[in-house]
Amino acid sequence: MIPWIFSPLQRSHAGGEELNRGSIVPCHECPERADFITAALRDQGFAEPLAPRDHGEQPLLACHDADFVAFLKTAYADWRASGREGSALPFTFPASGGMARRPMTPQNSIFARLGHYCFDVGTPIVGGTWEAAYWSAQTALTGADLLAEGVPLAFALCRPPGHHAGRGYYGGYCFFNNAALAAESLRQAGHAKVAILDVDYHHGNGTQDIFWQRGDVFYGSIHAEPLTDFPYFCGYADETGAGDGAGATLNLPLPRGTDWQGYQPALEQMLAATKAHGATALVVSLGVDTWYGDPISGFALQTEDFAAMGQHLALLGLPTLVVMEGGYAVADVGKNVANVLRGLEP
Amino acid sequence: MIPWIFSPLQRSHAGGEELNRGSIVPCHECPERADFITAALRDQGFAEPLAPRDHGEQPLLACHDADFVAFLKTAYADWRASGREGSALPFTFPASGGMARRPMTPQNSIFARLGHYCFDVGTPIVGGTWEAAYWSAQTALTGADLLAEGVPLAFALCRPPGHHAGRGYYGGYCFFNNAALAAESLRQAGHAKVAILDVDYHHGNGTQDIFWQRGDVFYGSIHAEPLTDFPYFCGYADETGAGDGAGATLNLPLPRGTDWQGYQPALEQMLAATKAHGATALVVSLGVDTWYGDPISGFALQTEDFAAMGQHLALLGLPTLVVMEGGYAVADVGKNVANVLRGLEP
Repeated sequence: MIPWIFSPLQRSHAGGEELNRGSIVPCHECPERADFITAALRDQGFAEPLAPRDHGEQPLLACHDADFVAFLKTAYADWRASGREGSALPFTFPASGGMARRPMTPQNSIFARLGHYCFDVGTPIVGGTWEAAYWSAQTALTGADLLAEGVPLAFALCRPPGHHAGRGYYGGYCFFNNAALAAESLRQAGHAKVAILDVDYHHGNGTQDIFWQRGDVFYGSIHAEPLTDFPYFCGYADETGAGDGAGATLNLPLPRGTDWQGYQPALEQMLAATKAHGATALVVSLGVDTWYGDPISGFALQTEDFAAMGQHLALLGLPTLVVMEGGYAVADVGKNVANVLRGLEP
Repeated sequence: MIPWIFSPLQRSHAGGEELNRGSIVPCHECPERADFITAALRDQGFAEPLAPRDHGEQPLLACHDADFVAFLKTAYADWRASGREGSALPFTFPASGGMARRPMTPQNSIFARLGHYCFDVGTPIVGGTWEAAYWSAQTALTGADLLAEGVPLAFALCRPPGHHAGRGYYGGYCFFNNAALAAESLRQAGHAKVAILDVDYHHGNGTQDIFWQRGDVFYGSIHAEPLTDFPYFCGYADETGAGDGAGATLNLPLPRGTDWQGYQPALEQMLAATKAHGATALVVSLGVDTWYGDPISGFALQTEDFAAMGQHLALLGLPTLVVMEGGYAVADVGKNVANVLRGLEP
């Protein structure tokens, strides 16, 4: 029986809108994503989810700047206090290569702070965003607790997702970096080395940002070529970390249209690098937007390929926490997740 | 008779949409702005406008990076070639303080390039954008020609505006920095020192960017406090230039609600600094969005105050090119412009 963690409070981030291809549309990253996964796990005989334990805000500060956390906590109240309703979205950003006043203060316009802390127009803040993001992070932290307590495999149904959230920025539907928080928790629980393997369709720019200069946490990612796909500005193969982290980042971008035949060798390469790094615990950033039917992505994995993916990851033989990231074909996302988890079972 | 320059080709940037307070709306910066100014000048007995001379693309490169100019030239064709219609708007940007791959290449997604070169979601590129921006720049360059040929006062009806466009970025309704191009042209025509005085409601972050390290072009600006107003990330009083340009930037931010009583002392301070710099030619970045009725701004100048503004600027006794920037209350914008020009007349 694979234990998994979820709180209905994670549904509170709801009703927001995003700018998508020139139109303001309801968010792709909706609470129903979690419902579909929950339903699929029940269908497949999983037990009811465990409630996340409350670790407070302190663990968030291991991976995120204090000013960033403070901003997120009051952002929607500040938005409303400025006389606005609806979703809080930025519309202007520091110019690339231009002057950018720092740090932000509470005296700065909410639009300045939104543009400073957020890197896109796809990640609205609404009334329930803090609550949902907070409990999504607690869900990941609770998953790390389970591993530290001896559970070999657990699933943190994190939603909103996390891998695009950096030390001091949010975006890409992500607020707190759930996988990073779990990895850091495992480090503090005694694992000298931890690996985060990211199989979401999109590069985890936030996770890379957080561990870029750390050698103790390996970050490996298979994702769509950033020349063509979000997040566009990083995730290239020659980005391998810096300082103490030199060599501890591995990016394996693949072209659009990649199917399992093209995916499997990259996965094997990533597993070999993970073994070489010497991690004793594994966090999987699981996006199932690599599925051929995903509405906003371009890989071509089939539902059965996700079972094979799980089986490959199991070959590492490490205590493993699977953390939910993306996957937007709501009706099918759950089956693909269940397949990865079943594949990972010993 | 004050000569002025305008080309109907500058109307070609039309039909675009911007993200404004959470909604996609038709652009505030519309061709009708130029029509209203044209009508007001005719009403007040101005002659017909001169057509801009075509200086080609070479002068653009004095103030803008070659890759930036090349991007703007093909941006809309690239947008269409990627299968999209409507306005080309970015939706994601390099994260503030995050990793940002440079330079952009034609192989990068149009969304990557839009996010790299543009700093907001308010500046769409449509089919006529290049043509309009090109001729807006030529209009400014032609105004500089007139001064070099001995005309004491001229008006370049630049539209789209320019002062938010930096060396390698666009935004804030601006593509090429018309005022900067004119100032550079005056430098090359023999003026050892030139001043740009920016009286638009918004700080001219692009102009500041272009001349930040140059002492030969003084940049002075009176604008809304960047803590509360666009462009938010620069325009603070302690930004005074660097290197050879140390001391040649003067920012005088004023609070929302400022009327002529509050504005005039700042203007006098800016004029004194301009005299001390020793410029022998003047470019005025004229925004009339300081008018009390402007729909997106917050100062409280009255129509008659614009005549007083012109009279103050005339006290410098310099050959003066007035370059149009912002001002969005279309029905009244023309009268305010005419008042500044009349005030400037010897």
